[in-house]
Amino acid sequence: MESIIVYEEHPKLERPVFIEGLPGVGNVGKIAADLLMESLGAKRFASIYSRHFPPQVTLDEDCIVEMANNELWYVRGVGGGADIIFLKGEYQGSTAEGQFDLARDMMGALLELDVSKIITLGGYGTGAMVDEPRVMGAANGKEIKEEMSEHGVLFRSGEPTAGIVGASGVFLGLGKIYGIPGVCLMGETSGYFVDHKSAMAIIGVLERFLGVEVDTADLKEKADQIDVLTAKVKEYEDTQNNEDLGYIG
Amino acid sequence: MESIIVYEEHPKLERPVFIEGLPGVGNVGKIAADLLMESLGAKRFASIYSRHFPPQVTLDEDCIVEMANNELWYVRGVGGGADIIFLKGEYQGSTAEGQFDLARDMMGALLELDVSKIITLGGYGTGAMVDEPRVMGAANGKEIKEEMSEHGVLFRSGEPTAGIVGASGVFLGLGKIYGIPGVCLMGETSGYFVDHKSAMAIIGVLERFLGVEVDTADLKEKADQIDVLTAKVKEYEDTQNNEDLGYIG
Amino acid sequence: MESIIVYEEHPKLERPVFIEGLPGVGNVGKIAADLLMESLGAKRFASIYSRHFPPQVTLDEDCIVEMANNELWYVRGVGGGADIIFLKGEYQGSTAEGQFDLARDMMGALLELDVSKIITLGGYGTGAMVDEPRVMGAANGKEIKEEMSEHGVLFRSGEPTAGIVGASGVFLGLGKIYGIPGVCLMGETSGYFVDHKSAMAIIGVLERFLGVEVDTADLKEKADQIDVLTAKVKEYEDTQNNEDLGYIG
Amino acid sequence: MESIIVYEEHPKLERPVFIEGLPGVGNVGKIAADLLMESLGAKRFASIYSRHFPPQVTLDEDCIVEMANNELWYVRGVGGGADIIFLKGEYQGSTAEGQFDLARDMMGALLELDVSKIITLGGYGTGAMVDEPRVMGAANGKEIKEEMSEHGVLFRSGEPTAGIVGASGVFLGLGKIYGIPGVCLMGETSGYFVDHKSAMAIIGVLERFLGVEVDTADLKEKADQIDVLTAKVKEYEDTQNNEDLGYIG
Repeated sequence: MESIIVYEEHPKLERPVFIEGLPGVGNVGKIAADLLMESLGAKRFASIYSRHFPPQVTLDEDCIVEMANNELWYVRGVGGGADIIFLKGEYQGSTAEGQFDLARDMMGALLELDVSKIITLGGYGTGAMVDEPRVMGAANGKEIKEEMSEHGVLFRSGEPTAGIVGASGVFLGLGKIYGIPGVCLMGETSGYFVDHKSAMAIIGVLERFLGVEVDTADLKEKADQIDVLTAKVKEYEDTQNNEDLGYIG
Repeated sequence: MESIIVYEEHPKLERPVFIEGLPGVGNVGKIAADLLMESLGAKRFASIYSRHFPPQVTLDEDCIVEMANNELWYVRGVGGGADIIFLKGEYQGSTAEGQFDLARDMMGALLELDVSKIITLGGYGTGAMVDEPRVMGAANGKEIKEEMSEHGVLFRSGEPTAGIVGASGVFLGLGKIYGIPGVCLMGETSGYFVDHKSAMAIIGVLERFLGVEVDTADLKEKADQIDVLTAKVKEYEDTQNNEDLGYIG
Repeated sequence: MESIIVYEEHPKLERPVFIEGLPGVGNVGKIAADLLMESLGAKRFASIYSRHFPPQVTLDEDCIVEMANNELWYVRGVGGGADIIFLKGEYQGSTAEGQFDLARDMMGALLELDVSKIITLGGYGTGAMVDEPRVMGAANGKEIKEEMSEHGVLFRSGEPTAGIVGASGVFLGLGKIYGIPGVCLMGETSGYFVDHKSAMAIIGVLERFLGVEVDTADLKEKADQIDVLTAKVKEYEDTQNNEDLGYIG
Repeated sequence: MESIIVYEEHPKLERPVFIEGLPGVGNVGKIAADLLMESLGAKRFASIYSRHFPPQVTLDEDCIVEMANNELWYVRGVGGGADIIFLKGEYQGSTAEGQFDLARDMMGALLELDVSKIITLGGYGTGAMVDEPRVMGAANGKEIKEEMSEHGVLFRSGEPTAGIVGASGVFLGLGKIYGIPGVCLMGETSGYFVDHKSAMAIIGVLERFLGVEVDTADLKEKADQIDVLTAKVKEYEDTQNNEDLGYIG
């Protein structure tokens, strides 16, 4: 294994659910995962460093450096009792090969932690304004698909047609290889901006799946701003269309 | 070995013939191999995953994901009795290094399966419309060249001058290293479109070589459409030439 | 380990301080490190060769070749008694992955040498002329930050906002992983030219930290030339601004 | 070791001299090495295959494929008694990393063969027509430099200033690391075309060094054509200069 995984702690977890929330379309997955982690009081237990992240450090407000990495966090006994591991980070692998290698290395660590399910989070880019984002799904097996359908996830035949690229896809693929049921939850989003409203939709599914309630007040506020933004864009588009008609007529 | 090879089954095969049918020029090799596999009722026994395929999953109509891969299929006792292994897939390695690495890993698996012959399939791009595509050959030894000549494969000194790039070439090269006779069958094709007619020509050679008959009714229909297309392109070209003359005159 | 490390000598050092001075912004770090090495009479003890340096040799005045490399030099009992290891070279790794791999290999060697502190040197590009360059800092822990503050290093919350890229950053990150306190000293520089004055500022900090005095007469001379250059650029800029005002008025 | 080295024979050689003649500037090194090999009746004993060569095969006149490779050839008891190993090929590594890796793998094989000296061959591009090409040298030690000076090789302080890139450079560098004396012989060449005359100059040095005589009649003929070409280019340039003067006047 090429990655360096530094453990701060080796938590004993009971068949944990793994939730991946790395950056992606509309940053939807990362926003949802980060809020859920905070809400549940998750704790970091490992950091992953790799040649496939940029060779650089960032600085915090105390000028203390942190090398580009991904992190594993955990929380025990959530809602109905589930233990959860989160994958958090600012980066995906820099190259196609790197994305595969990183997911493969991390999957090795997850198998050691006896992970029972994989939930990857992301945005489903529609290229158009979305009033009420739904949560679309893709699964690596029929059972988990059915389970997730019951929590409001929408599976539409063959979509997204472009497939799922990056960690959200590769973890499902590796899960299939190693016999770990997995699903990707994708919040609908225009993809044009960071989409808190779409993230809220994903949180809703995860609340039902995990049997918890997340304080989404802050997120709601940001989502409302997105509603305002969406309305303005639509208003503008309508104006344009009318003008176009005028011009044609 | 960097690749992940997942076996669904470890079939016992009698000195199997290996047929590679990955995407390439005019998709000729893939069309021929896929039809032959279907016709012979081949069965998948292994999937190959690698950092050299795109880091992504695609979805089937049930929204079940499949990670980018190549697959090995087999069929026993074909025609004169040959066991066959097929290499099927939607991808070749993403980089030059990846194409070599993948073929090397797969060759390792094939040697374990005691493969006796390598047949790689591809298109021979002519850059011009082809009425009656022939099957050109390149071999990694004299005996297999003679054997294939008897089945109608045409070996033209030093052609293709550009050599053979990708899996179709590398498998022959690796076969030479490890003492496995190999031949590349290339159906002539303009290279401008997916060429079912050229694939039919390859099927013809494989029918004779394997002593089987393949139902090519569907393929024939698509090939006829190509005839129509070819005729139209030629007609158009003739018109252009006449007009050009007119213009000059 | 992929790198080739060739030892001319295996010096026994007492918890040495490691100082990295590879090329970078304004070449500030390299100039400072090279002068300090020369002043202290450091001695080369190892050369590092790698696929991540350009595949080439350079020639000295006797036409004797040297392959692209990095070098480790040492000196014992400096000032207050510190043993020092320097990293000197004309190259950083050619790719992002290479920069990480190289630092990781070298860190392995440094751990074997029982290194006690890491000091990486570089330029802090301001994009504007700098009259009196200060030395900015970033640390991988609070203690070394405080220690360096006492020697005149300025830590400004969250700066540089772009982080620290390359060896100067990665060594701090790896140091954090392996429990070696580290700091990056960055001399302010416009970044537009090789900046000896900025290097002098770094030397000043290192003199205080190590309890030595470095003969900077040559450097001072070059720094004075930079003062002249800076003055001219400023004069020119002022003229431009006045003209601009005239033009607007 | 990543490369695949296939041995046809394991020749017992007495401290052989290694001569590298891969493609490069003006193809000077390759032409010289290939002619010398042919003249001495060298015999191939190993082929090197690698992910760092293009993933393809070429075809000979019998349509038999050969995968992109490099080859090792040997000859015993040349002239004064030297055993020689030649490196022959159509390719250098496709990437910077690949060039280093390949040379490192081959050096491993050469060390096993107890190689005593390394002679790399290449062109020294002058960017101008060369009437009487000299052979410039670069060495990895003083002794071999002196030895080669006696055979007419010219060592000019610090030249070529751009260093030596690729196999011709890296083998000297690796030789230095492993204690094998090495020299690069560079025939002066404009670099604008394949330069047989420059190759002849290198052959001359090697004849003296090895104590052999090479039949260069064919090469001489091609070199004469280059003389004609050079004369024409010069004539043309003179005309241009005169015209330019006329234009100015």
